[in-house]
Amino acid sequence: MPRTSRKPLDAFVFDAYGTLFDVHSVTALAETLAPGRGAELARTWRAKQLEYTWLQSLMAGDGFAREDFTRVTAEALDYAVAALVLPLDEADRARLAAAYLTLDAFPETRATLAALAPRPRWILSNGTVAGLAPLLRHNDMEALVDGVLSVDAVGVYKPAPQVYALAAERLRLPPARIGFVSSNCWDAIGAKACGLTSFWINRTGAPIDRHGPWPDHVLGSLGELVVAVSG
Amino acid sequence: MPRTSRKPLDAFVFDAYGTLFDVHSVTALAETLAPGRGAELARTWRAKQLEYTWLQSLMAGDGFAREDFTRVTAEALDYAVAALVLPLDEADRARLAAAYLTLDAFPETRATLAALAPRPRWILSNGTVAGLAPLLRHNDMEALVDGVLSVDAVGVYKPAPQVYALAAERLRLPPARIGFVSSNCWDAIGAKACGLTSFWINRTGAPIDRHGPWPDHVLGSLGELVVAVSG
Repeated sequence: MPRTSRKPLDAFVFDAYGTLFDVHSVTALAETLAPGRGAELARTWRAKQLEYTWLQSLMAGDGFAREDFTRVTAEALDYAVAALVLPLDEADRARLAAAYLTLDAFPETRATLAALAPRPRWILSNGTVAGLAPLLRHNDMEALVDGVLSVDAVGVYKPAPQVYALAAERLRLPPARIGFVSSNCWDAIGAKACGLTSFWINRTGAPIDRHGPWPDHVLGSLGELVVAVSG
Repeated sequence: MPRTSRKPLDAFVFDAYGTLFDVHSVTALAETLAPGRGAELARTWRAKQLEYTWLQSLMAGDGFAREDFTRVTAEALDYAVAALVLPLDEADRARLAAAYLTLDAFPETRATLAALAPRPRWILSNGTVAGLAPLLRHNDMEALVDGVLSVDAVGVYKPAPQVYALAAERLRLPPARIGFVSSNCWDAIGAKACGLTSFWINRTGAPIDRHGPWPDHVLGSLGELVVAVSG
């Protein structure tokens, strides 16, 4: 299909952690605190963090309330430290958790956001607003992002449809006119299931997930986004 | 607290895969089909299988319908084969999926179930009834299980509260009078959040999960259950 036949996108919504912001510095700190085990710690921590967001979202109801991402992240770190039997004390864990507040943006993040203007560029994240704001400041990106949405506004984590519907509602746009961009394949699939035009940033050449509708576009880096939507 | 102060349990509900039935034979077949990679394949497959049940449950709504466990299991296997870049064709994958229909019960499963009679002993599983029935036949366990419940009856996977509520409803018992038994810590936590008396069978000495209320009891094997509930 020629690129010009695509409907234009009127706004862009980005996942934050791993998509706009590089979590590598967390891995580097983990390696400093647990030499030789840093990558394994960061990987286990991240996997458990996502697992807990899904489990808590599913469990939520009369007898159980979802916790926010900061709390889930701390619980997942506690699990990972126990699973790997690492001697990290409370202060070490606090340093690791705090590293999420000073993540660096990917090298192409700022230029990509700038090139998409004047179309609105929003963030839609599992994170708390309080956890996301420092990232924008740290990377001097406040002028490049037009709005920040946390799942806390709907009380359930991605990929619940309420989360993606929130973006359409706040942007006052039909879902298909919104480009949703995530480095998490399951997140791009969740957005696609809700009708958003979905971009999976597959930096690592990972296999595509099989549990839902495939994203509309698979790109190797955030920088490719500008070309992909310029047709 | 002395054991005798516990309220008696009027029925027992068991998870199936990994709790009553040993998935080791799947790993063994995986090793035959992918020499040197069998354990990794089985582990990746299982992790993705669970992930897909959670993701699909969260995504379900107007635009997306959950698939059954047989389908999710096949999708997770496709992902695992792609992720590990293994040369397993359709026939190999069909053999692996079929291995789930002939899992052996753990050595202590039959004696444990027998010892709990005359109290009702049910199964509550993510699996389909069509997938669970052959397991009971294969292990000659039909007389040892009083009822089989699939999440298909409520249309959402564990640990959604509707799943555990289904057991209480069908058994016509207050949740706390039901002993729920699972080797999956998150499953035992999900049942506990719904008020069931929850037993985590921790065969591997894994760390406990942190995202919800801890199970009432942690046992090293299914066989310990009979002693634990006999006080």
